[in-house]
Amino acid sequence: MPQIVDKATIIQALADTSPEALLACMERSFTSYSSGEATVPPVGTLTFEQPPGDVHIKYGYLSGSPYYVIKIASGFYDNPLLGLPGSNGLNLVFLQKTGELACILLDEGYLTDLRTALAGAVVAKHFGPEKVDRIGIVGTGLQARLQLEQLASVTKCREVIVWGRSAEKMEAYRVDMEIKGFKVSTTAKATDLTATCNLIVTTTPSKTPLLPVTGLLPGTLITAMGADTIGKQELDPAILERADLIALDSRSQCIHHGEIHKAWADGLLQESQLAEVGDLISSGRTRARPEDIIVADLTGIATQDMLISELVLDSLK
Amino acid sequence: MPQIVDKATIIQALADTSPEALLACMERSFTSYSSGEATVPPVGTLTFEQPPGDVHIKYGYLSGSPYYVIKIASGFYDNPLLGLPGSNGLNLVFLQKTGELACILLDEGYLTDLRTALAGAVVAKHFGPEKVDRIGIVGTGLQARLQLEQLASVTKCREVIVWGRSAEKMEAYRVDMEIKGFKVSTTAKATDLTATCNLIVTTTPSKTPLLPVTGLLPGTLITAMGADTIGKQELDPAILERADLIALDSRSQCIHHGEIHKAWADGLLQESQLAEVGDLISSGRTRARPEDIIVADLTGIATQDMLISELVLDSLK
Repeated sequence: MPQIVDKATIIQALADTSPEALLACMERSFTSYSSGEATVPPVGTLTFEQPPGDVHIKYGYLSGSPYYVIKIASGFYDNPLLGLPGSNGLNLVFLQKTGELACILLDEGYLTDLRTALAGAVVAKHFGPEKVDRIGIVGTGLQARLQLEQLASVTKCREVIVWGRSAEKMEAYRVDMEIKGFKVSTTAKATDLTATCNLIVTTTPSKTPLLPVTGLLPGTLITAMGADTIGKQELDPAILERADLIALDSRSQCIHHGEIHKAWADGLLQESQLAEVGDLISSGRTRARPEDIIVADLTGIATQDMLISELVLDSLK
Repeated sequence: MPQIVDKATIIQALADTSPEALLACMERSFTSYSSGEATVPPVGTLTFEQPPGDVHIKYGYLSGSPYYVIKIASGFYDNPLLGLPGSNGLNLVFLQKTGELACILLDEGYLTDLRTALAGAVVAKHFGPEKVDRIGIVGTGLQARLQLEQLASVTKCREVIVWGRSAEKMEAYRVDMEIKGFKVSTTAKATDLTATCNLIVTTTPSKTPLLPVTGLLPGTLITAMGADTIGKQELDPAILERADLIALDSRSQCIHHGEIHKAWADGLLQESQLAEVGDLISSGRTRARPEDIIVADLTGIATQDMLISELVLDSLK
């Protein structure tokens, strides 16, 4: 029988891991992905129309690791109406030498949510403005919370403005995040984010652009982590056109189903704008000029799932 | 927590299922696949060089089912040297409406092995000669055993000849299968199969053709179920050229990584030779003439995994 680990045990196992170790784990997920050290086949996807949901299967292995990992994560967007969490999933850890199932991490999507938020923090650390004046958050769901929490370990800024469609959800977000030590304003106008924030994180499964180019400040980093399936899009394409650098977690994934997917297909982007996060971190070519506008397009990569799973296994030992 | 079911419980749950019900389940796997009732994305694959192994992720859902299923199966060919089974895996059953993980079937590859053998029996039932004179088996491993066992429910023939590379393994096969009621000869010459059998099943992960066209009898059905990954090939391409009908479990899979993959790429096959098993069964166009030589190319389809998983869940209730 494989080791079967439930969510509470996973959370407990990671509780003693330092923010630095978590960030280092995610940095390695970017660099190992881009260096070719990792074998990562195309993402498997299942899409459901009614109720709306999507399932991602991300998998692969690092040469030198004893494991290969298959991660399944789902988002079913009507679940909260039923009192259920929207995201779900599990991580399966197998032995590379025999194919034996070593461990089932029944994280219910927790590890995917965590590594996604950590990836946002890594990107902010390497590509963000030197001094963050205000953090703009698009969306009020779980990832809008986790991204902000993880940003606390890479910036001293605690000034936040959140945009959402529901006044009620924005207020809940404000209350929850003020308990965590942030000072949060709410707005129904997305231009309030572009005009006052130099670090913006978009976290929704929107299929139409939410964040306009209007008022966008020089030096801003926009981390777009919502779009991870064909059809999802959070940014006005003019933002992508204007960006000095578009940092992609995975070139192949982003071009096929990330934030840049449509703009790339429409021929709006220049090849010279694009590079992979892992390559940029490895070579130290992250932010060239203070005034550069940078977009990070994060679709989520299997190396994140592999390395966070290994971290849990190590912590459990 | 999802329901977690171990291999012994799965075997127990299926023990009372009739051969007819098992065959019907697999017939439906073919017809639902070809009718479009099933959503089946491309198979996910991981390949390891040393030790040699491959992992398949097959997944999807049937419209009308409460479930979607993700099946992971591996073959690590040096495992027997370590005293471990070569095949391994598990089936994950999720709810279509919420993405919740309903059940983990820790079948260790048993369900994949079983449904693969059942698929062979279904094909023999529908495409085999009216009277099987002798069954030829290429290979001496687990699937060589299971295929023969399952054939017992669709033919009265118990005369068998087996070809393998190892005299020792052939002898073990002979002993094991005679206990199951078959009369088994062994041979080191594959032409002994083509010259005396009108039902031949090839079950190896060979990368070079093992079964020659020499002596092939009119009316023969050859079920090629070993090739399921690019590079695997068991039949002399001349057999495929000569075949009156090549029945494919999945056209897209067979063309990409089945037995016909290379012959198709080399332009040796006619479009008119090819059809999907499910379409042929549904329309009753299985064996046109007694003398037809038919090849069934089975790569294994996700609907088999979905339906056998549902059968286990129903049996457990």
